[in-house]
Amino acid sequence: MDLKPTKPLSGFIELLPAQQRCFDYCANKMQNVLRLAGFSMLDLPAIERAEVLTDKDNWDEIETQMFLFQKGDTKMGLRYDGTVGLSRYVAGHLNNLVFPFRASQFSKRYRGERAQRGRYREFYQMDLDIMGINTLSTNYDAEIISVISRALNSVSEFIGPNVVHVGSRPFWDAIFDLLELSANQKRDVFVLIDKKDKMGDDDFADALKDTLNDTDKENVIKSVFVDGYEKFLNKSAKLDAAISELTDFMKVLDAMGVKGAVIDLSIARGLAYYTGLVFEFKLTEHPEFGTAAGGGRYENLASKFSKTKIVGVGAAIGFSRIFASMLENNQIDLSRFANPIDVAVLVMGDNNVAYASQIVNTLRDNGIVAVSYLDTDKKFKNQIEYSDKIGAKYSMIIGDDESANNVVALKDMESGNQQTLSLSDAIKNIMGE
Amino acid sequence: MDLKPTKPLSGFIELLPAQQRCFDYCANKMQNVLRLAGFSMLDLPAIERAEVLTDKDNWDEIETQMFLFQKGDTKMGLRYDGTVGLSRYVAGHLNNLVFPFRASQFSKRYRGERAQRGRYREFYQMDLDIMGINTLSTNYDAEIISVISRALNSVSEFIGPNVVHVGSRPFWDAIFDLLELSANQKRDVFVLIDKKDKMGDDDFADALKDTLNDTDKENVIKSVFVDGYEKFLNKSAKLDAAISELTDFMKVLDAMGVKGAVIDLSIARGLAYYTGLVFEFKLTEHPEFGTAAGGGRYENLASKFSKTKIVGVGAAIGFSRIFASMLENNQIDLSRFANPIDVAVLVMGDNNVAYASQIVNTLRDNGIVAVSYLDTDKKFKNQIEYSDKIGAKYSMIIGDDESANNVVALKDMESGNQQTLSLSDAIKNIMGE
Repeated sequence: MDLKPTKPLSGFIELLPAQQRCFDYCANKMQNVLRLAGFSMLDLPAIERAEVLTDKDNWDEIETQMFLFQKGDTKMGLRYDGTVGLSRYVAGHLNNLVFPFRASQFSKRYRGERAQRGRYREFYQMDLDIMGINTLSTNYDAEIISVISRALNSVSEFIGPNVVHVGSRPFWDAIFDLLELSANQKRDVFVLIDKKDKMGDDDFADALKDTLNDTDKENVIKSVFVDGYEKFLNKSAKLDAAISELTDFMKVLDAMGVKGAVIDLSIARGLAYYTGLVFEFKLTEHPEFGTAAGGGRYENLASKFSKTKIVGVGAAIGFSRIFASMLENNQIDLSRFANPIDVAVLVMGDNNVAYASQIVNTLRDNGIVAVSYLDTDKKFKNQIEYSDKIGAKYSMIIGDDESANNVVALKDMESGNQQTLSLSDAIKNIMGE
Repeated sequence: MDLKPTKPLSGFIELLPAQQRCFDYCANKMQNVLRLAGFSMLDLPAIERAEVLTDKDNWDEIETQMFLFQKGDTKMGLRYDGTVGLSRYVAGHLNNLVFPFRASQFSKRYRGERAQRGRYREFYQMDLDIMGINTLSTNYDAEIISVISRALNSVSEFIGPNVVHVGSRPFWDAIFDLLELSANQKRDVFVLIDKKDKMGDDDFADALKDTLNDTDKENVIKSVFVDGYEKFLNKSAKLDAAISELTDFMKVLDAMGVKGAVIDLSIARGLAYYTGLVFEFKLTEHPEFGTAAGGGRYENLASKFSKTKIVGVGAAIGFSRIFASMLENNQIDLSRFANPIDVAVLVMGDNNVAYASQIVNTLRDNGIVAVSYLDTDKKFKNQIEYSDKIGAKYSMIIGDDESANNVVALKDMESGNQQTLSLSDAIKNIMGE
């Protein structure tokens, strides 16, 4: 019989135990920052109705991007982000939630496109959203950035420092108004700004020319990336308002303790979704990840689900993108995560299983990670080899003598020292008291 | 425009924040028991190749039971249990794992059948497996049961006590040999035993008659459920061996501290998978859940993926089945989980955001769950109402006076007492020092 393949599907992440412990450690560290900031952890279904996932009805096209299936008459599919489910959830539970509502989701998302090198088809993101009814101060945009910064800082030993770049959709809207662009031109130029980093300056200039065909207007737009916003003060009330919002916001960020934040008007974050300030986090020592986290302000999260206007600010941290790729590329020293076992309890003969089991239970009751070796007919040599392989800090050897005398033989696996002790003394030893 | 539906698809679980906190609390408690017992937490892909999920190639039939899709030439689908992925993973990483290997998976699984009342189509199970190469002592079967028992005990405040029922596949094999049943009869009778509890005694007797059409043989089988194993001692060497294994095993369980375990020969656990001892946990105060956890011994986990023989014992705890249904049916008092916020920091005016933000950061640095109210133009009345609604234990009011004097106004939300304090004194107060 042919054996089946043991590799996961391409684009799917599979970590070894020590890698997984590091992954989980980082997730817990970051989630704890979110919990201290009062975020509710939501766990929403991974499958949604197709009509929730998309407004499009060109199924052939959608199917190239998502995992879709049909049950009975119902078309459904796997979520590609956390926002589709969140908007449905919040709209459905308006009366059960207190606003401003702080929500976080750490969950798997799916891209149904065919496998591509370096692209995950299943990946974790960690979302943060703060939502209000009708209004929400931009102070909350600063709060989200502050919390993300603290979350990334909590794992800086692995990923190094982070810096946030802040852009403004209203700034560009005001520039476009000033240049009297048509609606189509506005949309197309926004797409170009969003892609500018990937395109490079020359391609950007060419594409801008194709779209606008007006040297003056093209130069104005290009000058933003060279000269910044300062040159655009006192040009229009709308532009001044956008610039004030942005510069005031940077002061709030600073007051909140977010270090080194920069204004970066090349941050555009797509078209449909965001309406105000937008931001992206970069890892200064890992430019290869591009955007580590990104988000912004939205004016109406759940308009498709509710007549209540839900205003908010949201962001997603590319958790798998950062941590799974660093782990897969051996960019993290795993020695801390290699050996989680405190004690291996080695049992010499089935007649000592009862005594050894009481010991194992007592160790675990004391919060000591204890593994028992229960193939009791194996020789001592094999058992101690197991203890060594799993990296146990101590071996506790339970043979006939230990059972008879109600003691344990405790071997420090690093020094090799072995002592015969009462269990309570052994526990003190293990716990370093 | 018509609004889209806000309810999740039927069969999908969606919890409110306090319910989710309880769900997560129970999962963490139980996972901690597993971690202390040295289990490695694995997080495997939710999507597997169709050939990994099933040996069948009748796609129309499979599609009624699973969520399947095709990308390019590759058929794939969502996992329905943890074992398919585990067997692939272990076979693929034989050289990276230390055996006996203890693995746990707490993950979502999927049933692709059409929605049915009371059946989840997306649900969590918590798996435990201990695997060896070629051999593994049945002491490990007892260890798995002991760890599950401890895990369920760790959340007994919610689910009450548990008891394990232990059955034996070899016992039935020996009985069938004694009765000289054909291979087909063996298979059919096993299926009947597995369904006996659901069928009731009369239907079971009728079905047994249909299968065997031999009153003597039928009576022997029925007598097992009435008289137990004792009557079958000294009938055959194979039967005696099976009985010894079972009765010895109960002694080991007792020695490991598993209380109240019972021999229950009606436990059969399906056909294909298990080859030795099998077991099911019941919650004595919640018979409505049927089996809370179940598992058993398998002789060759990964034969489809590897020529290496992986012997082991595995079990799955029906986590969503227990906790999601108890939460959905309001069977758990959520008052402990309703109010996770220690301090609401209420900010009176944008000019105090900087001072308030330093305070918020300091609170969070001290492990205090602190939420800031940042719509600073809202009146005190609205802000304190928010603090009340989220159930904050304290409100910390930051106005111009507090900023100017470098103090905080700390209001105990239960007593209503308010004090003006330095931040460090306020923190001592909050932490109950």
